[in-house]
Amino acid sequence: MATPPFEPPRLEPALETHIEANAQRYLDGLAELCRLPSISAQRNALPETADAVAALMRDWGLPAEIVTTDDAPAVYAEIPGRSPTTLLIYNHYDVQPPDPLDEWLSPPFEPTIRDGRLHARGVADDKGDLVARLAAVEALLAVRGELPLTVKFLVEGQEEIDGVAIQDWIRRNPAKLACDLAFVEAADLDPSGRPVLVLGTRGMLYVELEARGPAIDVHSSLAAAVENPAWTLVRALNSIVDASTGRVRVPGFYDAVRPLTPAERAHIADLPDPTPAWREQFGLTAFPGGVEGAALMERVIGDPTATIAGLTSGYAGPGLKTIVPAVARAKIDFRLVPDQWPADILARLRAHLDAEGFAAVAIHVVTQDGIPARTPSDDPWVQRVAAITGEWFGARTAIQPNSAGGIVMEPFMSALGAPTMFGGIRPAGGRYHAPNEYIEIDAFALAVKFAAYLLDRLADE
Amino acid sequence: MATPPFEPPRLEPALETHIEANAQRYLDGLAELCRLPSISAQRNALPETADAVAALMRDWGLPAEIVTTDDAPAVYAEIPGRSPTTLLIYNHYDVQPPDPLDEWLSPPFEPTIRDGRLHARGVADDKGDLVARLAAVEALLAVRGELPLTVKFLVEGQEEIDGVAIQDWIRRNPAKLACDLAFVEAADLDPSGRPVLVLGTRGMLYVELEARGPAIDVHSSLAAAVENPAWTLVRALNSIVDASTGRVRVPGFYDAVRPLTPAERAHIADLPDPTPAWREQFGLTAFPGGVEGAALMERVIGDPTATIAGLTSGYAGPGLKTIVPAVARAKIDFRLVPDQWPADILARLRAHLDAEGFAAVAIHVVTQDGIPARTPSDDPWVQRVAAITGEWFGARTAIQPNSAGGIVMEPFMSALGAPTMFGGIRPAGGRYHAPNEYIEIDAFALAVKFAAYLLDRLADE
Repeated sequence: MATPPFEPPRLEPALETHIEANAQRYLDGLAELCRLPSISAQRNALPETADAVAALMRDWGLPAEIVTTDDAPAVYAEIPGRSPTTLLIYNHYDVQPPDPLDEWLSPPFEPTIRDGRLHARGVADDKGDLVARLAAVEALLAVRGELPLTVKFLVEGQEEIDGVAIQDWIRRNPAKLACDLAFVEAADLDPSGRPVLVLGTRGMLYVELEARGPAIDVHSSLAAAVENPAWTLVRALNSIVDASTGRVRVPGFYDAVRPLTPAERAHIADLPDPTPAWREQFGLTAFPGGVEGAALMERVIGDPTATIAGLTSGYAGPGLKTIVPAVARAKIDFRLVPDQWPADILARLRAHLDAEGFAAVAIHVVTQDGIPARTPSDDPWVQRVAAITGEWFGARTAIQPNSAGGIVMEPFMSALGAPTMFGGIRPAGGRYHAPNEYIEIDAFALAVKFAAYLLDRLADE
Repeated sequence: MATPPFEPPRLEPALETHIEANAQRYLDGLAELCRLPSISAQRNALPETADAVAALMRDWGLPAEIVTTDDAPAVYAEIPGRSPTTLLIYNHYDVQPPDPLDEWLSPPFEPTIRDGRLHARGVADDKGDLVARLAAVEALLAVRGELPLTVKFLVEGQEEIDGVAIQDWIRRNPAKLACDLAFVEAADLDPSGRPVLVLGTRGMLYVELEARGPAIDVHSSLAAAVENPAWTLVRALNSIVDASTGRVRVPGFYDAVRPLTPAERAHIADLPDPTPAWREQFGLTAFPGGVEGAALMERVIGDPTATIAGLTSGYAGPGLKTIVPAVARAKIDFRLVPDQWPADILARLRAHLDAEGFAAVAIHVVTQDGIPARTPSDDPWVQRVAAITGEWFGARTAIQPNSAGGIVMEPFMSALGAPTMFGGIRPAGGRYHAPNEYIEIDAFALAVKFAAYLLDRLADE
């Protein structure tokens, strides 16, 4: 992804000059953080990286503090500004594991420049977003001595493992975090170079269903004498989703679903059509029910889903083994939408299985911490951020009512009452979660300017 | 299993003396064969072992020949006898793999005597059966210069992998193999020390169902846009068996089932009740449908079954992975009964899946070579073998209409027209297919005498 083909507005000359003069310093700050292997899945280097983030903040004039959560430490900084407006920015310092290591052209934790790109694990997701924003604050403070509005940074270390500690910490600290609006992480431009503002997230309940049969695998010649847990599991699974409609049959599953508004549906219809890319990337020849285009996107964005992510029972090797398995398991991923609540769906699933004769099928909860949320698209702050972003990129900002995946948003909305969104500020980059993750160095420099522009314009009366 | 507590009939004194005088020679012959690691699953030492079987036969006066099948060689010998009656005996020289090796107290292919037992892989299943019968023929030839009846031996090398080549070879050689009755392999005494004569076998169709979805695993946030092959597989499986009755729903599946006759049901009612052992061994608290006792045994022996032996799809590791899997597979083991035919059931399964909307679910055949068969229990040869066996063991012979598992019987019946059965002659032994397989040396010596007695009595007018 090269630097987008647009001519952004000019910043005030002193600010522009300062940012350009300090470009190497900002890039060095980013590279420094990328040297730390803060792999949350391995609980690796998390306190050290929190300390390094705090040190970088202080070096750049932000009053950082380490805050203790129930898990890895987070970093908090509050920089008072001129206007009464307060913006809360959430980023994360943890990264995905770098595997497979042998596909990296340079070591994942030795930031390396090749072809105008800085390569390192975490450089795009999410250290680049964080450092671009910190650099904008550094520049504004250096040039003007104060920010145009109050900015609060919350930088956590367990985003990549869907850690729940930061959610709890946010709920316990509503006064400290009080704000007018919140930005979480960031998003890419769409494939046409247009900015996207995402207003919500789907949630997730992830469970493993387990059916148990005989104490040990039994020779299948005795199948007539043994209840086979694989059949039990198949029947239990089959009871969960209606085969003809694809709808979840668990009573009350859809009760809390907040329908998309006409405005949200219009925003979805205005999004670029991802289906050509999906056809190509996933080898798809058709979509479920023959639904395509905006109608399909409404489903992906607005509908909850029940997905079998894994099935395991008995013999998985080549050829044959003639057994009645002792156990059968299915992993199921329920993607939830506002205002479904994972714990409520879990209780309904249990009641459904009991009512359908599957009381003996155990439900093991893998996670119920992904809570859906959606900021209304007619919120004034949404309109304002979309307008500012559009000014910068010279294109109308696309609005996506919520992401298909999951991100921490709900606590900002429920505990802080803040319209929460993400998008439009990420330095162009790629290969998130994959080998040779990178950012474009030019795009990173531009992202610093965009962050400064956005802070300035948000403070305007 | 110690030597059974019974006093068998005496053989003619010269025969009794010869067998006792040659006990060590017979045991040495068995040990010699057990030194050969004829593991058919690994295609190991099969021609060498066929040669060794033929050499032992010739050494003991039998005119052995190696016969070429479409796969591993078999050994054939025909010894003319005094009466017009011809008995065909089928055994196998191949063995199961010896794994797990570290559980063997002595190396599996170094026959070792401990506590009155000879330990080696294959010593019980099935080299001991074969050598006891060969020893009986040796003794009869040595003492009398001829056999009381004509005996034909067919010894193959792929029984443990359900090889089909011997079935084809039998069907191509009906004149050569013509006989009045056939014994296949052998069987244990029942737990009370009573002989069992088994008259049939269930068959097997073993398939893998495969549902394919996207070309690669897709992030589950896009679940609404991708047909999930795991759901497809669950639905296809669910269509195969009726959840409430447990009956197979494939149209025509039961059409060819030969019902148990009243006589066969009476024989089943007379079998020992295995359910206490099953409860203990498999940790069962109940049986399907609450059926127990003779009714349960009628199902195990007389009903076909459809068993999910394996389920595989997507993520099987700990925790969560949020994907729509690219593929889902199930291994299904259909145990068939007379007169179901595996190829017919396969065709019906394909038609059923097509009719139910699962044309895209592939069926990969793992084996369709297990063909069910059942000799009528009122066959005169059955009555006669049961009576002779009962005389020897001093107990009424139990009759089992067919085994729960599978064994090569059908070609003997369909191609040769021979009443075919197994049982009552195996030297007491154990740990078939497991580490430290053994036979009791005393019981082996007794099995030689029993084989000689049986040949003599079968020849009586």
